Amino acid sequence: MAEPIVALSTPPGISGLAVVRTSGDKVFEIVDKCFRGKVKISQTKTHTIHYGEFYNGAKLLDYVTVSVFRAPNSYTGENVAEISCHGGFFVAEAIIDALIQCGCRLAEPGEFTKRAFLNGKLDLTQVEAVADIIHSSSVQGYQTAVRQLAGEFSRKIADFKKKLLDSVGLLELELDFADDGFEFIDRSIILNSIDETIAFCEDLAASYHSSEILRSGFFVGIAGFPNSGKSTLFNSLLKRKRAIVSDIPGTTRDYIEESIFISGVPVRLIDTAGLRETEDFIEIEGIKMVDSLLAQSNLVLVINDLTCGQSHSDSLFNELVERYPESKILLVQNKKDLVDSPQQPRNFEIYISAKYNQGVEKIYEIIRDEIYKGTQHVKDILLNQRHYLLLKLSGEQLKKAKESLLNNLGNELVSADLREAVKTLGKLVGDTFSQDVLNNIFSRFCIGK
Amino acid sequence: MAEPIVALSTPPGISGLAVVRTSGDKVFEIVDKCFRGKVKISQTKTHTIHYGEFYNGAKLLDYVTVSVFRAPNSYTGENVAEISCHGGFFVAEAIIDALIQCGCRLAEPGEFTKRAFLNGKLDLTQVEAVADIIHSSSVQGYQTAVRQLAGEFSRKIADFKKKLLDSVGLLELELDFADDGFEFIDRSIILNSIDETIAFCEDLAASYHSSEILRSGFFVGIAGFPNSGKSTLFNSLLKRKRAIVSDIPGTTRDYIEESIFISGVPVRLIDTAGLRETEDFIEIEGIKMVDSLLAQSNLVLVINDLTCGQSHSDSLFNELVERYPESKILLVQNKKDLVDSPQQPRNFEIYISAKYNQGVEKIYEIIRDEIYKGTQHVKDILLNQRHYLLLKLSGEQLKKAKESLLNNLGNELVSADLREAVKTLGKLVGDTFSQDVLNNIFSRFCIGK
Repeated sequence: MAEPIVALSTPPGISGLAVVRTSGDKVFEIVDKCFRGKVKISQTKTHTIHYGEFYNGAKLLDYVTVSVFRAPNSYTGENVAEISCHGGFFVAEAIIDALIQCGCRLAEPGEFTKRAFLNGKLDLTQVEAVADIIHSSSVQGYQTAVRQLAGEFSRKIADFKKKLLDSVGLLELELDFADDGFEFIDRSIILNSIDETIAFCEDLAASYHSSEILRSGFFVGIAGFPNSGKSTLFNSLLKRKRAIVSDIPGTTRDYIEESIFISGVPVRLIDTAGLRETEDFIEIEGIKMVDSLLAQSNLVLVINDLTCGQSHSDSLFNELVERYPESKILLVQNKKDLVDSPQQPRNFEIYISAKYNQGVEKIYEIIRDEIYKGTQHVKDILLNQRHYLLLKLSGEQLKKAKESLLNNLGNELVSADLREAVKTLGKLVGDTFSQDVLNNIFSRFCIGK
Repeated sequence: MAEPIVALSTPPGISGLAVVRTSGDKVFEIVDKCFRGKVKISQTKTHTIHYGEFYNGAKLLDYVTVSVFRAPNSYTGENVAEISCHGGFFVAEAIIDALIQCGCRLAEPGEFTKRAFLNGKLDLTQVEAVADIIHSSSVQGYQTAVRQLAGEFSRKIADFKKKLLDSVGLLELELDFADDGFEFIDRSIILNSIDETIAFCEDLAASYHSSEILRSGFFVGIAGFPNSGKSTLFNSLLKRKRAIVSDIPGTTRDYIEESIFISGVPVRLIDTAGLRETEDFIEIEGIKMVDSLLAQSNLVLVINDLTCGQSHSDSLFNELVERYPESKILLVQNKKDLVDSPQQPRNFEIYISAKYNQGVEKIYEIIRDEIYKGTQHVKDILLNQRHYLLLKLSGEQLKKAKESLLNNLGNELVSADLREAVKTLGKLVGDTFSQDVLNNIFSRFCIGK
């Protein structure tokens, strides 16, 4: 018995339309207490729309259309009525109030999608895709999430699970005939399907950082000694004035962040405070904030003031390369306009004049390339931490199965290892799940979805 | 031939749903270029919903439902398809892009409603009601606008027009039989219907200010000499700290505004700068901003510091009463906690201690009463300036007709005057209209309505 729930499914605000969604066994009867049209909603066919007046008692609240979706042919799999009313700050609220008075309760965040999952309309990766579509900050990210919603990833998981379970079945069948010494399945076939699945898991797990780029954006940290021109470059990249630029060393306090879109991905430019050389070489340890900003950057631009010499920031550059092995670090030789005969650029540096906007286009190109390299492998799923951990775990379980197999440890052990891996893969799509996992996933949802 | 138009009809933002609306002769064919479901949208019945994939070329954009409304049974009176997709910042935009590539153009603000008007689905006061429902800042205002959309006001106008035109018809018929001296209609009947219509117009025009309260809120200006406790009262009314309170006279620069809801109406509290007494009595002339804030206030609270004496602000109070004859002015005797034996309150003042929150409830009561008094007559229409001017004009035209009638100036003149008045009444609902009037009305609309 599905309790009737109600929520606003569109953003609050001034607009032409707002949509109030209800779901549950008795929602048509509840809507009928408020709706007056040509027909009763409880007597309408699925996938039909009905125009009429919506009341709270005797008070006319609005002229609405009610869209009817009968179980199981609805988003949640339950009876769903969607009331489309005028936008603004009062109408939808008044309609929700009326429905609550007639027996609905306000839905929790993600509750409609949770019901869709529990009623088997969506698996867990599809549920996550819904959240990623809605919250995505990049075009490519949202499009990947749509493919994930389409179920391509789920089908692949199902394929791998099926192959592994086929092996398990035959291995276990052999046990029944152990005395006869039959071999129902060639070991090379089992090995092959284990190896394929391991490769799939590892490839996919490796796309975790790429998914993060599509989900949250590509981070570019701008670092350098005071007065090297960080803020000027920051503004030049933004093509508008935002950071306070001055000639006094140390102008930029803490950091400034701005976003631009490159290749449909939000590129988050972070202008950090100047780094100083002290007796301890570089005081980066002391500037915790800068350290954590650079640590999460996909690309770090180390700005050097050419008027202080080409190798003035080499020590800083080397330090950062060592410190952040996962990031690309680029040495940006600035103020080339002030240097008479610039030297030949080394392969880890470029020459620019941030002030005169020379060479800045090259930085866009590098960002574009890095985004492409970083995200080209993201295909059918926007990987999140949950996926990542489960994929790593199932990879490990499969390696253990492989080892047992190669060491002839017996069918019982191999099939037990394989069953573990299949269970882990199943958790990805939600064959089994814990309440904690569900709560965690649905905590990301907005109300009304 | 209605050009196909498209727009987002829900607010942009993170949400479960977004709705993209299209209208025009060929929209079903255009949607079919992008939509892949079980059936073609162009072959579906009106008021049905269809689930499927939405593409831009080969690129899957989202899983959507398409709601079909066939002309003339739609909001605009044209073929309308509403595409319900996932919320967020990319999906609806991608869908709109795809539809534009397939032949739609982006709708102008209010263009759907403009088409509804031009196709005779709504009259002009109903169009204005739609805007008022969406933009209303009070519950009562939105509910009045819903009644206006229901057409109660339009029906009344139609009744008055009909009665007046009946008189005109008979007056003009008499002209044909002028030589015979027939009188087809008793003059008292004509007079009666003129008087009724004048009363209707004048009553309604008088509700203009009330409508403004429901549309924009009830303004409460707080005025007084420096250090009288204006900001303390402001905070006390808000029940939280917002204005900077200090003992230095003149702390509040310019003004601070905050809103609270009382009786479903936003009450906009305005804490003005302190007024000073100069040789020219009160320097209000000089503080233009304060003057204009108080001039638009429905209620002005003049705060007096009792420790300076009960009549310390009487001169200011009297000045304001004279200056703003349309506003209610209340003298608020503050700091009663510091005065040993407060005197008997006069009928235009109340005693409070803003600091200790004593007597502040009385101010809420007065605001509540003023809102009730100010808005109880607003029934079926939220009057705007256009209505107000047309109602005043038709009242004047009817008075002229009445005079012509009483002075026996002849049927031609009387009927001409009446025809003018009928025409003016007709402009209210849009029987005739100018492009300027339409542009002005639709400039208030958001895109997608």
